[in-house]
Amino acid sequence: MGEFDLIAQYFQRDYAPGDNVVKGIGDDCALLAPRAGMQLAISSDMLVEGRHFVSTVSPDALGHKALAVNLSDLAACGAKPVAFTLALALPRVDTTWLHGFSKGLFALADQHGCALVGGDTTQGPLNICITVIGEVPPGQALLRSGAQPGDDIYVSGSVGDARLALEAFRGTVQLDAAMFASARARMERPTPRVALGQALRGIATSAIDVSDGLLGDLGHILKASRCGAEVAIDNVAALAIFHWAGHGFSSDFCREMTANGGDDYELVFTAPPSAREAVAQAAGRAVTPAKRIGRITADTQLVLRDAQGALVPNTFASFDHFKS
Amino acid sequence: MGEFDLIAQYFQRDYAPGDNVVKGIGDDCALLAPRAGMQLAISSDMLVEGRHFVSTVSPDALGHKALAVNLSDLAACGAKPVAFTLALALPRVDTTWLHGFSKGLFALADQHGCALVGGDTTQGPLNICITVIGEVPPGQALLRSGAQPGDDIYVSGSVGDARLALEAFRGTVQLDAAMFASARARMERPTPRVALGQALRGIATSAIDVSDGLLGDLGHILKASRCGAEVAIDNVAALAIFHWAGHGFSSDFCREMTANGGDDYELVFTAPPSAREAVAQAAGRAVTPAKRIGRITADTQLVLRDAQGALVPNTFASFDHFKS
Repeated sequence: MGEFDLIAQYFQRDYAPGDNVVKGIGDDCALLAPRAGMQLAISSDMLVEGRHFVSTVSPDALGHKALAVNLSDLAACGAKPVAFTLALALPRVDTTWLHGFSKGLFALADQHGCALVGGDTTQGPLNICITVIGEVPPGQALLRSGAQPGDDIYVSGSVGDARLALEAFRGTVQLDAAMFASARARMERPTPRVALGQALRGIATSAIDVSDGLLGDLGHILKASRCGAEVAIDNVAALAIFHWAGHGFSSDFCREMTANGGDDYELVFTAPPSAREAVAQAAGRAVTPAKRIGRITADTQLVLRDAQGALVPNTFASFDHFKS
Repeated sequence: MGEFDLIAQYFQRDYAPGDNVVKGIGDDCALLAPRAGMQLAISSDMLVEGRHFVSTVSPDALGHKALAVNLSDLAACGAKPVAFTLALALPRVDTTWLHGFSKGLFALADQHGCALVGGDTTQGPLNICITVIGEVPPGQALLRSGAQPGDDIYVSGSVGDARLALEAFRGTVQLDAAMFASARARMERPTPRVALGQALRGIATSAIDVSDGLLGDLGHILKASRCGAEVAIDNVAALAIFHWAGHGFSSDFCREMTANGGDDYELVFTAPPSAREAVAQAAGRAVTPAKRIGRITADTQLVLRDAQGALVPNTFASFDHFKS
């Protein structure tokens, strides 16, 4: 199978008028007609085997995840997904892989009305690069830079599960079958919080998605907003889907998994205490839980406290693609 | 050097208001404010070592080429470059490489007023994926599908030189030093025909850029436009920068290099004979030569003729990333 047949068979689809897609796959460029007055939110993520996914992942799950991590960036800006491009380097043409990958990819794309409008395919070490385009009304994008002293800090959904699955793959923890399956699903099929991001427009003062680890990503908000934070570390640990303690894990291990896990694709965001009801309503509309884990402070320190209010040393370093 | 320092040092720049860039590198998404009423042209290209560039290429030239091949897609649509994202997988942090690569990249980006607004960096086998965004007035994008029987077929600039350089690297031809340097410059630093593409809006009936080989890429126009073509193969061969015959190359070799070379990043386009003056003026405004090489026919065959009008068998197969 050649390059053009491959694209036609697995990736080329027709889009209805009204999707903002004037011209999809099949010309030198895709053509989009943005809605009048909207700003465009754009993000690119590149996934490499061994760094972003393990070789045992099913192609269907990989198709899902490759798009999910990009949609998560749109979610963190409060943008509505519109379209994406896919560039794919493949060691060889493997139709079983392509079938599964495109199935997982399109299932998530369709869920969010996000059209695949173009891209590239070539031979090379497996590499998946997606660029996603969303739209957001001017001035309403959620940025990292808007947190204010006194704001509450929230985290959506649950954190730590993806990292737990990774540790199980690495053999550093033993999980029973049901727990492993659940943790693995969170690692391989993260849920981008697209609805929550849009629901938080005009409410959240800042937001970021958790990809490298909760505290590290919160750190990006603190740096951009020039402020600090006090985080209740055990409120974070309680955010894992599983009752860690019930499985014999130490408190330190639970904190490490949740505060520093990475690959969660939840939203960390801030909002003033006066907006608590609005946050709760937004979370309700988005059918996505959001829990308070701390508050923004006027200094530039990130301080962690345990359930008794005692200081916990911040030994959590988030993931750096060139350091670990 | 970590991921964030690397981005800050080599890729993060400030853009002036008025560049349509509301938010560049440094948040979950970039934010663009498209000009009112404009359509967006979007293209992604992925470059892999050994497939798209040889390992001996200088990082500066590679930075240039990675963006050039994307700008060439915008040119083929008649779009004006606005912004791009860069996703980069690197085996390791090599500051000399990053310095050169970013220098070549930004030199070309600045020439076209194209802002780097976001992207990704990760560790992995060297892979460069750029997504470029341009703008074009509604209905004015040049597509592959508009060629009409009777239209003239044009090619900009020169073709075959990049392939000649590749053959020299492969050792299948011997070139003198000056010729090798010129051919190599064409391979490593292609010139995207951005000004010509925009000048041809409203004049050309179809266009494509030559990446996989002139006749193969012309074939995409014929397929999309459901028509055929008659091409004067020796008018194509005459388009190389060098006087091939003067270097002892056979006629067949010259035809192969030019008709099927690939990596040229010239524009192939069509326009009715009534537009010859308009094409000449557009080429003049863009300071880019454009030569007629044939005409569109009503059937669906691609017929090649030599200088004497005799049929030449079409043995030219353009490059397929999964076949060669």
